[in-house]
Amino acid sequence: MKVAIVAGSKSDEEIMNAAREVLDEFGVTHKEFIASAHRSPNLTKEVAQIIEDEFDVAIVIAGLSAALPGVIAAYTNKPVLGVPVASDLMGLDALFSIAQMPRGIPVATFGIGKKGAKNAALFAIRILSLKNPTLLERLKDKARSEEEELRKLNDM
Amino acid sequence: MKVAIVAGSKSDEEIMNAAREVLDEFGVTHKEFIASAHRSPNLTKEVAQIIEDEFDVAIVIAGLSAALPGVIAAYTNKPVLGVPVASDLMGLDALFSIAQMPRGIPVATFGIGKKGAKNAALFAIRILSLKNPTLLERLKDKARSEEEELRKLNDM
Amino acid sequence: MKVAIVAGSKSDEEIMNAAREVLDEFGVTHKEFIASAHRSPNLTKEVAQIIEDEFDVAIVIAGLSAALPGVIAAYTNKPVLGVPVASDLMGLDALFSIAQMPRGIPVATFGIGKKGAKNAALFAIRILSLKNPTLLERLKDKARSEEEELRKLNDM
Amino acid sequence: MKVAIVAGSKSDEEIMNAAREVLDEFGVTHKEFIASAHRSPNLTKEVAQIIEDEFDVAIVIAGLSAALPGVIAAYTNKPVLGVPVASDLMGLDALFSIAQMPRGIPVATFGIGKKGAKNAALFAIRILSLKNPTLLERLKDKARSEEEELRKLNDM
Amino acid sequence: MKVAIVAGSKSDEEIMNAAREVLDEFGVTHKEFIASAHRSPNLTKEVAQIIEDEFDVAIVIAGLSAALPGVIAAYTNKPVLGVPVASDLMGLDALFSIAQMPRGIPVATFGIGKKGAKNAALFAIRILSLKNPTLLERLKDKARSEEEELRKLNDM
Amino acid sequence: MKVAIVAGSKSDEEIMNAAREVLDEFGVTHKEFIASAHRSPNLTKEVAQIIEDEFDVAIVIAGLSAALPGVIAAYTNKPVLGVPVASDLMGLDALFSIAQMPRGIPVATFGIGKKGAKNAALFAIRILSLKNPTLLERLKDKARSEEEELRKLNDM
Amino acid sequence: MKVAIVAGSKSDEEIMNAAREVLDEFGVTHKEFIASAHRSPNLTKEVAQIIEDEFDVAIVIAGLSAALPGVIAAYTNKPVLGVPVASDLMGLDALFSIAQMPRGIPVATFGIGKKGAKNAALFAIRILSLKNPTLLERLKDKARSEEEELRKLNDM
Amino acid sequence: MKVAIVAGSKSDEEIMNAAREVLDEFGVTHKEFIASAHRSPNLTKEVAQIIEDEFDVAIVIAGLSAALPGVIAAYTNKPVLGVPVASDLMGLDALFSIAQMPRGIPVATFGIGKKGAKNAALFAIRILSLKNPTLLERLKDKARSEEEELRKLNDM
Repeated sequence: MKVAIVAGSKSDEEIMNAAREVLDEFGVTHKEFIASAHRSPNLTKEVAQIIEDEFDVAIVIAGLSAALPGVIAAYTNKPVLGVPVASDLMGLDALFSIAQMPRGIPVATFGIGKKGAKNAALFAIRILSLKNPTLLERLKDKARSEEEELRKLNDM
Repeated sequence: MKVAIVAGSKSDEEIMNAAREVLDEFGVTHKEFIASAHRSPNLTKEVAQIIEDEFDVAIVIAGLSAALPGVIAAYTNKPVLGVPVASDLMGLDALFSIAQMPRGIPVATFGIGKKGAKNAALFAIRILSLKNPTLLERLKDKARSEEEELRKLNDM
Repeated sequence: MKVAIVAGSKSDEEIMNAAREVLDEFGVTHKEFIASAHRSPNLTKEVAQIIEDEFDVAIVIAGLSAALPGVIAAYTNKPVLGVPVASDLMGLDALFSIAQMPRGIPVATFGIGKKGAKNAALFAIRILSLKNPTLLERLKDKARSEEEELRKLNDM
Repeated sequence: MKVAIVAGSKSDEEIMNAAREVLDEFGVTHKEFIASAHRSPNLTKEVAQIIEDEFDVAIVIAGLSAALPGVIAAYTNKPVLGVPVASDLMGLDALFSIAQMPRGIPVATFGIGKKGAKNAALFAIRILSLKNPTLLERLKDKARSEEEELRKLNDM
Repeated sequence: MKVAIVAGSKSDEEIMNAAREVLDEFGVTHKEFIASAHRSPNLTKEVAQIIEDEFDVAIVIAGLSAALPGVIAAYTNKPVLGVPVASDLMGLDALFSIAQMPRGIPVATFGIGKKGAKNAALFAIRILSLKNPTLLERLKDKARSEEEELRKLNDM
Repeated sequence: MKVAIVAGSKSDEEIMNAAREVLDEFGVTHKEFIASAHRSPNLTKEVAQIIEDEFDVAIVIAGLSAALPGVIAAYTNKPVLGVPVASDLMGLDALFSIAQMPRGIPVATFGIGKKGAKNAALFAIRILSLKNPTLLERLKDKARSEEEELRKLNDM
Repeated sequence: MKVAIVAGSKSDEEIMNAAREVLDEFGVTHKEFIASAHRSPNLTKEVAQIIEDEFDVAIVIAGLSAALPGVIAAYTNKPVLGVPVASDLMGLDALFSIAQMPRGIPVATFGIGKKGAKNAALFAIRILSLKNPTLLERLKDKARSEEEELRKLNDM
Repeated sequence: MKVAIVAGSKSDEEIMNAAREVLDEFGVTHKEFIASAHRSPNLTKEVAQIIEDEFDVAIVIAGLSAALPGVIAAYTNKPVLGVPVASDLMGLDALFSIAQMPRGIPVATFGIGKKGAKNAALFAIRILSLKNPTLLERLKDKARSEEEELRKLNDM
């Protein structure tokens, strides 16, 4: 399989869906996991091992302390894309937790919430397109059609 | 042994020392560990297991994403006291990462840097004093002498 | 009795309940107080004295300037767990007020609002479990069942 | 006596001096106290009682959790002017702690650090000038000469 | 008359009312003005002149850039109490604008919104009570009854 | 004359120089003023009147509460360009004070410190170039040569 | 034509309308464009070229990363007025992105959201009024009537 | 070639070096570019085109408004890794500008400054290792040796 989508809690389902929709649009296979770095540390390690063995990229969604993306990145060598979720502090807590990783274990951070999840999915597709010319063509088509649409909006 | 002091990096040594000094002052035994939730996830789990088996309290010092206190708290049922360390964002990143734990796994957060480490050590002693009347007397003495000192400063 | 829950205002009742529910779940006895460090400084001192004499741990809930946890910690040697409440500034004011205690008087800070109150209660139970093996078993059971639940969610 | 200057720690001496200089310039009598809301809660109450009995206004300087101005305001009915001191978080912690007082006990907040202390002193003089025409004249003179000085700088 | 309440816009009426209610409760005479430092600079100067001539204290309510308290303080020698109003940035913009006055012209800052306005009114009464023993008695009564009320809530 | 540069304090001279250098480079005439919205409100109004009568654009530099750009904009109809200066809060206080003007009186805000002052000067030149083709040519030349320089750096 | 209004997305229409209303009130001709610096980089360059050739001023509205004002300013020498739009982070992201331009390419920043758009429009009119005495008269009239209105509100 | 490193200014050289060192350690070929989204928009587009044609991944380093990563991502379909650089606002401006991309064009954000550049380089290697087993082995070796080193530090 290609892309794993992991969320820290069932309540992040809407954010997961945002990523899923983009992957489906591009025909990229994916699988979802719910694992908490804090409430299920052993399960999280197992999920990371599955990602290491069976997936190319992981999109990891987490709010608050948001340790999940970093912990999964610690157990795998696959690219991990972190998506911060907003709660009390507008998502600043999750954004800082995911972006400010110490030297040595990289996590790629995306924007807060649904738009971040969609962009993480598009980024995963950019990675996959490095060895998949069909995906690259679809990315180019989408870019062209997005610009075209805006062009029409302006009668230009 | 009583108190474990864990830091995410050797560069946090000065902060560790701040905690150690307070514990030494009260005659509380302690041991230091360096473990990174990200660069040494397996070692971190082992350290947490040692804390579960041999220690009463853990003081865990971490900067940036600061996942370490939460990850150790996930693997043990002992009280974990987190101390945020300042770097680029004045410690806001570490403070939020440690304080904003999701429901289920508690971490007690203290102030940023050395004063936080000293207070974490004093807090550990408050916990230990619940079953140790000698420690409780020392705490009372210290409180009395701190107030006395300030009283003298004012000739009151 | 075991755990005192103190709030700065009757309007924090919902946050108090979040802590209470967790303590009840674990069968830990508790008692509630309402006291304001600012509007009832003498009462606050009396409450702190009662905590010193009759309780093991205090959970102290406060918003805005949030002086209450620090003031109670100043009058007792028992572990004080502070829970910041959000108002105008998303709880940043209370979080900073509680976390940034000066050297000498420790307060353990937890997350903003209800999840923080629940975690403070769990942390109190971790403290109490140091001398209560039954509580420790219950904590282990809960950790196991939380992980189990997430495991089932993933069919793993 | 007229104005009490209270600081939470001896290390705030430079900030105290900034206030003192302004009061001396206007010939306003003052006295200094060092008291910590956390390390000397009883002394703090006594200082507040002295302010209630012998002073017109209190300038209270504090950093970090900065509970001191609010606690003194709780024990007296005299106007309390709070000056936040910067440490790890640029003074945001102290500024929020002093400014965001709950309804019922007022503290007047001034800017962070020395300029705030000077302005608190000038504000104390504005209060005292309400029943002291000489002080009012000096305030007017100072305002005139400040504007005059700037006017000369521009040859206007 | 005693206290002027000035707001930067008619939309701040609710905040003005919060201050007014406290003044009415204490029987302190007051008068309201609406003036914008930006949209009515000349009117603002005239209002400041009226405050200088006829009032003891001014409570000045402003949001966003919140220049009004500082500008009024520049034109008068009476104590000016600034109340920040929240809009896009939770009131941080107004809080910083009012609190961070440069050296020379003091403004006393209070909390954001209605609680800040109430406290500003109580602070104005503390100032007035310096030459009015009846007001001082009322303040003491209110403090006593607030504490009494909380005491009853706890059956203490 | 063309551009007025106004600063709130002599200590902002380095920031003024940054603007001045750019104007000199383009041969745009300018004059400097020092005026404080708070310490010299009448002088500030006079300076604003001079700007209204004799200048096309005003660059106004201010830190902390930073009321100066807004107050000058209130007394003139000329474009006012505000430059925030950093002090305790990294310039956030000045940035918010200048940018968050209420509806009705516009101030154009630029970046914090020297780079902001240089950009404000370039922006003033963009305004002046609307009726001055020579200035427009110089702007185009500068843009071309900046890009050329970067092109050479890359051997492109 | 005089003023171009560019927004990064159709969803910013309400903010565009706020600017448009002010321009219409002053009888200033304008035209709207929708262009995204990220989804339509080529279209954005073309819009900037049209602004360079046919407009005097551009008001550019953008949220989140808010690169649009800076990118348009890079392709034209006309004054570009940036208006930040609030989303997850209250508009802080867009405010910082627009205000903190590097040295060399100036963008004038205005307040967050609708009030910022209105002020940007008023600022555009201040620029246009430099070569249009009728517009200048209308600005003076508006200023007078705003002050008059507030004066009446106070019966002054 | 494999990895392009692009910086917005020559002054970011130290940050570029941090990324370069990691790539050299892994034997990954790379090339450096200096291009400003604002001062050299056409050059930036050409650099993006070169990345599209000749590189697999781009690491883009930028401070302040930090539009560069987003603009390059707009002109290419290759994965773009953005590294924020700190200046006045501790890098918050650059972090927000890079992380908060609107839906449609993804940029992967890393931590502020040198550690972020090192992690971006490691992340680029994770991407490249998806089709290069030798790189994957080196990543695993590095992870093992990092954990080993920490293990030795603890004599575990």
